[in-house]
Amino acid sequence: MHIESFYPPKRTLMGPGPSDISPRVLQSLSRPTVGHLDPLFIKMMDEVKSLLQYAFQTKNEFTIAVSAPGSAGMETCFVNLIEPGDKVIVCRNGVFGERMRENVVRVGAEAILVDNEWGEPVDPHAVEKALQNNPGVKAVAFVHAETSTGALSDAKSIAAIAQQFGALSIVDAVTSLGGVSLLVDEWGLDAVYSGSQKCLSCVPGLSPVTFSPKAVEVMSQRKSPVQSWFLDQSLVLAYWSGEGKRSYHHTAPVNSLYALHEALVLLHTEGLESAWQRHSDMHEKLKKELESLGIEFVVNEEHRLPQLNTVKIPAGVDDAQVRNQLLQQFNLEVGAGLGKFSGNAWRIGLMGYGAREENIALCIQALREVLSQSK
Amino acid sequence: MHIESFYPPKRTLMGPGPSDISPRVLQSLSRPTVGHLDPLFIKMMDEVKSLLQYAFQTKNEFTIAVSAPGSAGMETCFVNLIEPGDKVIVCRNGVFGERMRENVVRVGAEAILVDNEWGEPVDPHAVEKALQNNPGVKAVAFVHAETSTGALSDAKSIAAIAQQFGALSIVDAVTSLGGVSLLVDEWGLDAVYSGSQKCLSCVPGLSPVTFSPKAVEVMSQRKSPVQSWFLDQSLVLAYWSGEGKRSYHHTAPVNSLYALHEALVLLHTEGLESAWQRHSDMHEKLKKELESLGIEFVVNEEHRLPQLNTVKIPAGVDDAQVRNQLLQQFNLEVGAGLGKFSGNAWRIGLMGYGAREENIALCIQALREVLSQSK
Repeated sequence: MHIESFYPPKRTLMGPGPSDISPRVLQSLSRPTVGHLDPLFIKMMDEVKSLLQYAFQTKNEFTIAVSAPGSAGMETCFVNLIEPGDKVIVCRNGVFGERMRENVVRVGAEAILVDNEWGEPVDPHAVEKALQNNPGVKAVAFVHAETSTGALSDAKSIAAIAQQFGALSIVDAVTSLGGVSLLVDEWGLDAVYSGSQKCLSCVPGLSPVTFSPKAVEVMSQRKSPVQSWFLDQSLVLAYWSGEGKRSYHHTAPVNSLYALHEALVLLHTEGLESAWQRHSDMHEKLKKELESLGIEFVVNEEHRLPQLNTVKIPAGVDDAQVRNQLLQQFNLEVGAGLGKFSGNAWRIGLMGYGAREENIALCIQALREVLSQSK
Repeated sequence: MHIESFYPPKRTLMGPGPSDISPRVLQSLSRPTVGHLDPLFIKMMDEVKSLLQYAFQTKNEFTIAVSAPGSAGMETCFVNLIEPGDKVIVCRNGVFGERMRENVVRVGAEAILVDNEWGEPVDPHAVEKALQNNPGVKAVAFVHAETSTGALSDAKSIAAIAQQFGALSIVDAVTSLGGVSLLVDEWGLDAVYSGSQKCLSCVPGLSPVTFSPKAVEVMSQRKSPVQSWFLDQSLVLAYWSGEGKRSYHHTAPVNSLYALHEALVLLHTEGLESAWQRHSDMHEKLKKELESLGIEFVVNEEHRLPQLNTVKIPAGVDDAQVRNQLLQQFNLEVGAGLGKFSGNAWRIGLMGYGAREENIALCIQALREVLSQSK
């Protein structure tokens, strides 16, 4: 066996994540590793917490980064807040709503489904009806920005309805955080998870999570132990916020947290509203250019995510061949369709550091060349 | 709020992990992120798999890195192999045996405890007796190298006994992998998990795991779904080894996997036996020097881990003050005692890249200076 060091090419990442990463964030990864209980590292974690509170627009004391990817962040919310026998309304308008259902079932709870078509947002009225028809629902779970379809749902309205019925809101903000308006406290969201590798433009592997005081209260009044030891937040919190002395729970991914810190410093320096505006502006530009190539969007204009543009593959065009050529010839990654959209849609990401003029220029010109050859 | 970029100091890490990391591994982290389904990345993952097979000394097809720290690797073994109502013998001679018990209980299975004193190895005869007294045990779970005490257990004998009784062996090799002899196939171990940040000297955040064909068979014949979606290996395998087409499960921690690849290339280049010998040689040297300072070991000589030296804090010495001074004055991290050993032992790691002459020299001289002042 002879295996050499791996030197990846420099791709331009315009898929559904991981997104393009700022050189500053990449460089921060290589800084010397310190111990996960080192006082300087603990101080840095406190800063990560403050910066995440800013990004989530929350004062929630419970605001941390789970030491694993976004799907573990999702699981963190369900295993800590939901117990066997609980009823949870799960809104399903794409892959990640279905994954939420999987989580609810594996906790031993009952999932009550509110289905919308792929590419459409969650219908708040349908959520309201489901709550009326199912007394005693503990939580309403939905995806703010569906990464599989590019549709944005009205998190504010859905959370308000949940609150009216005394239910918690559990919100997937994996693709929304940092890319579109997300106001955790103002909208009254209870448990929100995200990922490091979308609009935060950090490396994949971490999942920012925030719980409202109400969610923390629910967690503290559990009757059964959390089924996951690794994701049991009552234990994790002793590490992230133990007063005075931090307790060891697991070894934190030190260098990945350097990168998250740096990515959040960049976001804070730019300002959240400016970042949202930049995503919106870049989306407008991309949209115009794509339309000039005759490419149509899957999602209606008013529910479109600026940071994730799901478009129909033009008739007669070979999906895999085009994406392969974009990758080989231009080092450009564009996302395949997922689930129902597999083979008939592309997902073009403009996330975080990737939401830039030069990325759009490359994408449009490369698509123009490749599509003209494939016809 | 004003938060600046974080520039950690260069520490020498001689605690229980994270360990010192080679500059080559740190540099690999900063390489440009590629997509987690990029063909070049998939090829690199295949190499990681081959290199892990080498490190574990196994031909197990199921050999991967879980996208989370070692404690998630532990949970991966239990949630995939153990079902509610199963009986599991858990050997407990330190913190991590107790954590295994926690995992067994949270799966809804019954934990039958075999206790040994902290600092002692697991007693194979006690395991045998427990198997005789408890027919129908599904698995025997034990820690090969107890990170909390520095004791090495006889994995080969314990696994052989488990096999005689038709039970699986579930083995914690977090601190042993790469530091002492570990022969997964020859010893017939069924499920083994480790961590990236000990003797592999990679950044924390990944957990190498290998399952024998028998373990894979047990997994495939489950009656109940795996309670964790994130750690469900039947889903994860479609990403790590899907023939032809890899399926998306979660977004892999791309850059951390670059680092694991590089760390494993370094291990393969050095050779496993050489690495084991180096750990042993450096331990002998450290031992002699510590003894010359009048410092005694906690664990009997024959069961001592070379890579993790647990020593008694000399009488009259202030634990926290000494460790703090080592850190502030010499940028040297030495581990505190854990659990029962908190406040009365130090854990001095010689792991992976940290098992070097210069680290021992620094540690001994710094200890000499600080201890002479503290008396």
